[in-house]
Amino acid sequence: MRDYVEIGIGREARRGYGLREISLVPNRRTRSSKDVDTTWNIDAYSFDIPLASHPTDALATPEFVIEMGKQGGLGVINAEGLWGRHADLEGALEKVYADPEDLSVLQKLHAAELDHELLSERIAQVRDSGCTVAVRVSPQHARDLAPVVIKAGAEILFIQGTLLSAEYVSADGEPLNLKDFIGSLEVPVIAGGVTDYTTALHLMRAGAAGVIVGSGFTTNEVTVGIDTPLATAIADVAAARRDYLDETGGRYVHVIADAAFDFSADIIKAIACGADAVMVGLLLASAEEAGGKGWFWPSVAAHPRFPRGHFEHVAREQQVPLEQVLFGPSTESFGQLNLVGALKRAMAKCGYTNLKAFQKVGLSVQ
Amino acid sequence: MRDYVEIGIGREARRGYGLREISLVPNRRTRSSKDVDTTWNIDAYSFDIPLASHPTDALATPEFVIEMGKQGGLGVINAEGLWGRHADLEGALEKVYADPEDLSVLQKLHAAELDHELLSERIAQVRDSGCTVAVRVSPQHARDLAPVVIKAGAEILFIQGTLLSAEYVSADGEPLNLKDFIGSLEVPVIAGGVTDYTTALHLMRAGAAGVIVGSGFTTNEVTVGIDTPLATAIADVAAARRDYLDETGGRYVHVIADAAFDFSADIIKAIACGADAVMVGLLLASAEEAGGKGWFWPSVAAHPRFPRGHFEHVAREQQVPLEQVLFGPSTESFGQLNLVGALKRAMAKCGYTNLKAFQKVGLSVQ
Amino acid sequence: MRDYVEIGIGREARRGYGLREISLVPNRRTRSSKDVDTTWNIDAYSFDIPLASHPTDALATPEFVIEMGKQGGLGVINAEGLWGRHADLEGALEKVYADPEDLSVLQKLHAAELDHELLSERIAQVRDSGCTVAVRVSPQHARDLAPVVIKAGAEILFIQGTLLSAEYVSADGEPLNLKDFIGSLEVPVIAGGVTDYTTALHLMRAGAAGVIVGSGFTTNEVTVGIDTPLATAIADVAAARRDYLDETGGRYVHVIADAAFDFSADIIKAIACGADAVMVGLLLASAEEAGGKGWFWPSVAAHPRFPRGHFEHVAREQQVPLEQVLFGPSTESFGQLNLVGALKRAMAKCGYTNLKAFQKVGLSVQ
Amino acid sequence: MRDYVEIGIGREARRGYGLREISLVPNRRTRSSKDVDTTWNIDAYSFDIPLASHPTDALATPEFVIEMGKQGGLGVINAEGLWGRHADLEGALEKVYADPEDLSVLQKLHAAELDHELLSERIAQVRDSGCTVAVRVSPQHARDLAPVVIKAGAEILFIQGTLLSAEYVSADGEPLNLKDFIGSLEVPVIAGGVTDYTTALHLMRAGAAGVIVGSGFTTNEVTVGIDTPLATAIADVAAARRDYLDETGGRYVHVIADAAFDFSADIIKAIACGADAVMVGLLLASAEEAGGKGWFWPSVAAHPRFPRGHFEHVAREQQVPLEQVLFGPSTESFGQLNLVGALKRAMAKCGYTNLKAFQKVGLSVQ
Repeated sequence: MRDYVEIGIGREARRGYGLREISLVPNRRTRSSKDVDTTWNIDAYSFDIPLASHPTDALATPEFVIEMGKQGGLGVINAEGLWGRHADLEGALEKVYADPEDLSVLQKLHAAELDHELLSERIAQVRDSGCTVAVRVSPQHARDLAPVVIKAGAEILFIQGTLLSAEYVSADGEPLNLKDFIGSLEVPVIAGGVTDYTTALHLMRAGAAGVIVGSGFTTNEVTVGIDTPLATAIADVAAARRDYLDETGGRYVHVIADAAFDFSADIIKAIACGADAVMVGLLLASAEEAGGKGWFWPSVAAHPRFPRGHFEHVAREQQVPLEQVLFGPSTESFGQLNLVGALKRAMAKCGYTNLKAFQKVGLSVQ
Repeated sequence: MRDYVEIGIGREARRGYGLREISLVPNRRTRSSKDVDTTWNIDAYSFDIPLASHPTDALATPEFVIEMGKQGGLGVINAEGLWGRHADLEGALEKVYADPEDLSVLQKLHAAELDHELLSERIAQVRDSGCTVAVRVSPQHARDLAPVVIKAGAEILFIQGTLLSAEYVSADGEPLNLKDFIGSLEVPVIAGGVTDYTTALHLMRAGAAGVIVGSGFTTNEVTVGIDTPLATAIADVAAARRDYLDETGGRYVHVIADAAFDFSADIIKAIACGADAVMVGLLLASAEEAGGKGWFWPSVAAHPRFPRGHFEHVAREQQVPLEQVLFGPSTESFGQLNLVGALKRAMAKCGYTNLKAFQKVGLSVQ
Repeated sequence: MRDYVEIGIGREARRGYGLREISLVPNRRTRSSKDVDTTWNIDAYSFDIPLASHPTDALATPEFVIEMGKQGGLGVINAEGLWGRHADLEGALEKVYADPEDLSVLQKLHAAELDHELLSERIAQVRDSGCTVAVRVSPQHARDLAPVVIKAGAEILFIQGTLLSAEYVSADGEPLNLKDFIGSLEVPVIAGGVTDYTTALHLMRAGAAGVIVGSGFTTNEVTVGIDTPLATAIADVAAARRDYLDETGGRYVHVIADAAFDFSADIIKAIACGADAVMVGLLLASAEEAGGKGWFWPSVAAHPRFPRGHFEHVAREQQVPLEQVLFGPSTESFGQLNLVGALKRAMAKCGYTNLKAFQKVGLSVQ
Repeated sequence: MRDYVEIGIGREARRGYGLREISLVPNRRTRSSKDVDTTWNIDAYSFDIPLASHPTDALATPEFVIEMGKQGGLGVINAEGLWGRHADLEGALEKVYADPEDLSVLQKLHAAELDHELLSERIAQVRDSGCTVAVRVSPQHARDLAPVVIKAGAEILFIQGTLLSAEYVSADGEPLNLKDFIGSLEVPVIAGGVTDYTTALHLMRAGAAGVIVGSGFTTNEVTVGIDTPLATAIADVAAARRDYLDETGGRYVHVIADAAFDFSADIIKAIACGADAVMVGLLLASAEEAGGKGWFWPSVAAHPRFPRGHFEHVAREQQVPLEQVLFGPSTESFGQLNLVGALKRAMAKCGYTNLKAFQKVGLSVQ
């Protein structure tokens, strides 16, 4: 039964829980980290680790995306970022992190026209490396850009806005019917973000291979007030996954959490609440290969009139190789290095050896 | 059913919720911001945006009030502020914000006698601009000042104290019977503040066209301990509106929230809880046209013996045009610019295209 | 019904509430502050304001105690502080506040022998001023000191330790039977502190005219973990007052709250929860007449082996007359000046004109 | 009945409580501290005070361990720390606290080979002092090291990892069956940490004389998300103790809490929730005899790839004798000196004279 409170006479609100409020309760036989398998299989693709990168130029340089693939994860390219707008990508990035307090530089750089050819070239370069290519387009430009990026080599398409419903009404007039649109594509689509059961179920019915929970790294809590507590949102969407599985007699749609994860524990808890994989942002900005050289900003920070999300610098002075961010060794204990080691340790200590089983770990709320 | 707790043996308290505790849950088809209508109609007046300014000289210069009107909102003049006390309004304001830590300057400037002619002249000047003229008087001086300001051109009268009941007992001896008083006026009256259902219903029965929820920008929480959580207060007063509508067979009294809103999300949540319009303070002090040149203080900060409310400076160094405060574009993501854009986006993302429907948006409490 | 939670298997804890968690809900006709009566009658004594000072030398110089009386309150003298230990009281105080970080100065000054004659002389001096004389003794030394201070002129005796039960077992071997002891005295006794219903009822049955709720200004929360939430403690002890009134057919024992009140709102809420009067500490240290010259420390800070409570400086640079602390005018809005004005305003806004009725004001908990 | 909430559709979490959320409610006759007995008896050993030191070189120099014994407590030696790795222990410690921000120094010093002879020598030296010798080994190395340290003189063996289950699967392949292993030893074993009823009961059934609750001084909350609220964990394990006592018809297994206790109140509350004894870390680092010279780090901070726990400096500049840390006198009131005095005072004020009875003291939760 849902837990509702009356906030005022005749007005109810549902009680929600954030990831920071919950903790794991180990109550089974502990295992060795070495026995833990973190494989994430989605559609025809298999990843050693259930981590994707948030689609922002602060992370996804070609070098970064290729390295993510090598390390067993999934680097996601933002089709509407700087890749297709500036021939000198490195130069453009430098301008951004040179004055990280000022969003207007980012806004201006995003005002440059999107050169489909340039974008395609760069996507093809990643494709050539042999790693799985995932590209994000916004709901507004999905119709135009999806064919471009798929032709260029995208194998997984992310249709991702801060919030997305199955019948998104495009600002340009013609609504995007996701079901028809997804049906017309030859690659699996991961769509979102959503924060509730109903919208998630609709996206699943629209044919999404994965649904993104959460509104990324936005500052929605102070701008528009849409800040659904994440533990609840993930669990609700996982319930939609379960019901959709039942309703279809076996179609499993993946739940992928994308939010401001600041510590390895946040990633672990997202999975414990029901996520199949997690999109990581700031934590991956520690990698030398990332575009922001220690600075992180979400894609939505470039919005021309209403930016959300802001610049954040990673905790450490010096970037380290992505491999070390993911697998250690670490010389700190702040939950920001050895992310996969942390996940494996948590699973092992709680007595689980695969991700699916770990989604049932005992939880405590404080 | 109300939610009560026993705080001690035989002593109950009602559970209340603040705006910061709640968030919106989008669970319908998302819409385009362009389809959103934010019109606020009250009595014979129609406003493009549901925003009024808190009645303080820190905002309401004649220039500011006129600009608020042009932008589709409502600038509210404080009849008992500096307008009618100092011929050199600009000079008086300069003295105030020159030493913003010291309330005694403000107190002294308010000790000057109120010149009805000077006040009337200035109100008339605003009236001449063609914008809707709203003037606030205190409950204590309503009887004396209302005729003056109405004669000078006030079209909407705010009778606003930190807390107001329908049968306010004036300190001067003779109680103000609001019902009789409002009945004697030819302009619609918006009265408050209130924080509960009963008092709000009484004000409605007294003939108020609108009821103000909240005690403005006071420091009531540390001074007198009357700090009703706002989400609850708004929802309760909205319930009074509903019941009064039923009891009168159709008289709709507006609910207007007036409190310390620091982010666009606060404004949005106030409406989501049931407010028809919102009085904004600090956020509008970012406007170049505002009197405080970046400083904000509520009218109650000038109280001679018991000031409440204090000076706050807006986040940015440089003021920007009011138009930009309301409609952007913004180069920040802190919820302090593009207030109307934020409201429209929230409504659109949650799937609503008018304010009345948006008052039913799903809520989550953490 | 009490509200209990199971903190672990088979282990329950009662839900408690602090003053900061609650707020007043005005839902009656507002009144004028001028109609408010704050008289506090206890035994044969009548005070214009329901405020006593915490028994510490940081407040109670002879000058301060006399002024408290003149202003309508009750200044409480600590019989075991510096008054009876140092002929040069001013010099001793200077040493204390010269190095306020170091409790050892205070400890050393309290190691001096207590000179009964010197103490008596000073008490007599206050008595001569005509104001009501209240003296605090510790439970440990009550037997020895009570006769001394009463002979010197004490009209109300406070037997106050951080926590006191009716059958306190003195460290010196012979237990103090409060019932017998109080019965043997000719002055009314106010005893405490207590934090629960049962102990309070026992103190009432032992003959106390008043029971102190709370453990003063101790740092109990970090030292010994006894930190009962005050709103709950006050309401519980008020319930004991009610039950004892019933059981005796009319004996009304006063409930006096003594805790770290930092804002006028804290004082107001203590009364709203059921207190008849409030002992104030830090807030009164703003007075020029106070011993600490802007520094406050509770009496327990002088404990030779286990000090609790620490030095705090009042918010403002400059002390002001006690009269202004109590009655204003104030040029600030931080809830630290015009304490009585704040109380009257809160009562008036909530629609109450006397303290006893105000104990039933509506409460909200967040 | 347990208290569960639904964090999302179909996903429950148990409500848990931390020590900081609870406080003691004194509601019995107060006693004198002098009447309080804090004796802790476990197996054949009797300690005057229920305090052990966390097994870290930041505390346990030979001098410190001997002094802990003299003062009535139990100093615990970490067999896998620096004692057996560096002939010049003092020099090694100096290197650690010379650069306390950098865990890599600690990691490198722990990479040195463990010299069983050196370790045995040092343990024997402590044994010679006549105090009870307790040595901690990790679950991974228990099989190899237990015989060594027992031969060297260990009288109580701690098998302690951050989390331990009765059937720990060693990373090296062969699982450690604790029941068989404990059965094969001639000394009592204290094993942990655990955070739940089931695992604790299994450890009890495996023959542990004591079970450690909590995961020490780790940064588990940000690294792996296993951060069970301690009040709940202790109460749950105490319930397992009760049930095991019943199931065995009288075997009493001790519950020992080991977590980040920053104030004397934390220690007191741990006992109030059901702990028989408490392992103290940072608070004991104030002692002159401690190895870290004011710096504290838990043993797990030395982990080569995934350190948890970090360096903390005690509040005061100057270390004081361990005796003063435990028994005062104190010239501060921050809950960091006179730990035993605080415990005795809390017990006395609440009306209890022995630890076992005090485990039933009334609790309040806020």
